[in-house]
Amino acid sequence: MTAPKRLSGVLSPVVTPFKRDLTPDPQRFVRHCKWLLANGCRGLAVFGTNSEANSLSADERMLLLEMLVQEGVPAEALMPGTGCCALTDSVRLTAHAVKLGCSGVLMLPPFYYKGVSDEGLYRNFAEVIERVGEQAGDARLQLYLYHIPPVSQVPITLSLIERLLKKYPGNVAGVKDSSGDWNNTKAMLDAFAKSGFDVFAGSEVFLLDNMRGGGKGCITATGNVNPAAINRVFENWRAPNADELQRGITATRQRVQKYPMMAALKGIIAHWARDPEWATLRPPLVELTPEQSKSLVAELQAHGFDMPGLATSAPAAA
Amino acid sequence: MTAPKRLSGVLSPVVTPFKRDLTPDPQRFVRHCKWLLANGCRGLAVFGTNSEANSLSADERMLLLEMLVQEGVPAEALMPGTGCCALTDSVRLTAHAVKLGCSGVLMLPPFYYKGVSDEGLYRNFAEVIERVGEQAGDARLQLYLYHIPPVSQVPITLSLIERLLKKYPGNVAGVKDSSGDWNNTKAMLDAFAKSGFDVFAGSEVFLLDNMRGGGKGCITATGNVNPAAINRVFENWRAPNADELQRGITATRQRVQKYPMMAALKGIIAHWARDPEWATLRPPLVELTPEQSKSLVAELQAHGFDMPGLATSAPAAA
Repeated sequence: MTAPKRLSGVLSPVVTPFKRDLTPDPQRFVRHCKWLLANGCRGLAVFGTNSEANSLSADERMLLLEMLVQEGVPAEALMPGTGCCALTDSVRLTAHAVKLGCSGVLMLPPFYYKGVSDEGLYRNFAEVIERVGEQAGDARLQLYLYHIPPVSQVPITLSLIERLLKKYPGNVAGVKDSSGDWNNTKAMLDAFAKSGFDVFAGSEVFLLDNMRGGGKGCITATGNVNPAAINRVFENWRAPNADELQRGITATRQRVQKYPMMAALKGIIAHWARDPEWATLRPPLVELTPEQSKSLVAELQAHGFDMPGLATSAPAAA
Repeated sequence: MTAPKRLSGVLSPVVTPFKRDLTPDPQRFVRHCKWLLANGCRGLAVFGTNSEANSLSADERMLLLEMLVQEGVPAEALMPGTGCCALTDSVRLTAHAVKLGCSGVLMLPPFYYKGVSDEGLYRNFAEVIERVGEQAGDARLQLYLYHIPPVSQVPITLSLIERLLKKYPGNVAGVKDSSGDWNNTKAMLDAFAKSGFDVFAGSEVFLLDNMRGGGKGCITATGNVNPAAINRVFENWRAPNADELQRGITATRQRVQKYPMMAALKGIIAHWARDPEWATLRPPLVELTPEQSKSLVAELQAHGFDMPGLATSAPAAA
């Protein structure tokens, strides 16, 4: 087995739709994934932070992933999140994703225990790589480390990356840096980009900087609602108007992130899909209030924001 | 179905033994649970923070719990941890524990997402209570809320407790306060102890204060290694020498907590059981170095610490 082709460009951590009874909704999920791929996303980082992945059981994630592939979402466009608190869950989800043919996996460190050592984190990732290699073939696993200390509280340090890359150069494919700290992204680029380690910015705010620094794209929450414009920056990062394009997507991001991100994304989709059920989140997250939702939509509309084609692919509004 | 009898006294978040291949070891686990119940613990808060519960999958936890009950550990002594990031996992583990006849469950809030609202946490616990009530009978679930902000980063506030108690007085049984902040424990006691809400201190350091304030005992990591002495404080908290007894257990705690807690507990058990394999932890946690282990044991021995009867119940040392 050979390694799959590496992803680049704009990836969306696809929001996971729930029905009113809080069960995941595969139909809306498939539909949104296809809309994203048709509208600028080159890949889908399903089961990311903004997918409420950590509000789903391992079985729920595996079932949804299988349904995506069955319903024609190409496995080579998928980079599911598979990092859990429990080593056994991480191994199970990762082997499952690799066997389905996913391009890569995006892996959180185990995030319950705080202040853990790099030695402990190294052992965690090494165990996953070794065990998945035994189960699913060595070269196929392309692992992207997920650095998101504001949420996980457990960082992926440069020295941890160095040690993993040295031991597993064929499996450790890159990183998503959601630190929100450009200096950290730059340090990762400077240290590892030349050795084939793919750095994705965790927000489109840093997309242009990341491309100029040798990165591969971004994996960004707002990719769920604004993929075409973000992709335009990716495709034109060497163009004379790149900075202007970047300012446009940064401004949209700022309008959205005045609100709790996952509730905002689902509120936007619910509006443009004319499908109120889309706004449902699983506890502990809560939806926007009607007032918040109204202000957000109004501000986006005032700046010409649209999600073309979303409504026609959704069920008729009530 | 009626509610089980409430637990009180010293509960241990039982450390989970692993074999060298990192699979859980049911034999050592059963043996340690029985030793604890024979040596001062009135209950076993299996699958707590110090049990590395969050390094176990839901299936691993359920299998271990079933084996405990099958091997004669009384279900009425058990208060397993069942709070997960995913609502569906929390419901599954909680219903399973209730059906097995466990006295109660100790429930973490969903801990991945940070800065979540009390409304979202309320919905999480309410969904668990409602769904488990449908599956396993209304009155049987005795839920203890687990407040451990230094690790979970998601607090259980007084107003959340108040709202849950008001809606589910028959199910919301108490709290474990591992904030490390006596003022918070006191505020919980003052607000809720009189309405039948059982407050357990999260460390024996606060055991005497907690008993004097109307609490029910403690659920403490070092209960794994020092249960008899801690139980002596519980049983004699009204005696004239209670403060002296408290100083003794506080001093032992301080000797242990100079080291990473879970590694220290397992190192101590490995030594007194003459069973080196006990020292194994699952990543991301790592065992003590041989030097750390030696110093810890030496310091405890210098102060007369012992775990009587532990070695005879363990396999012969190498």
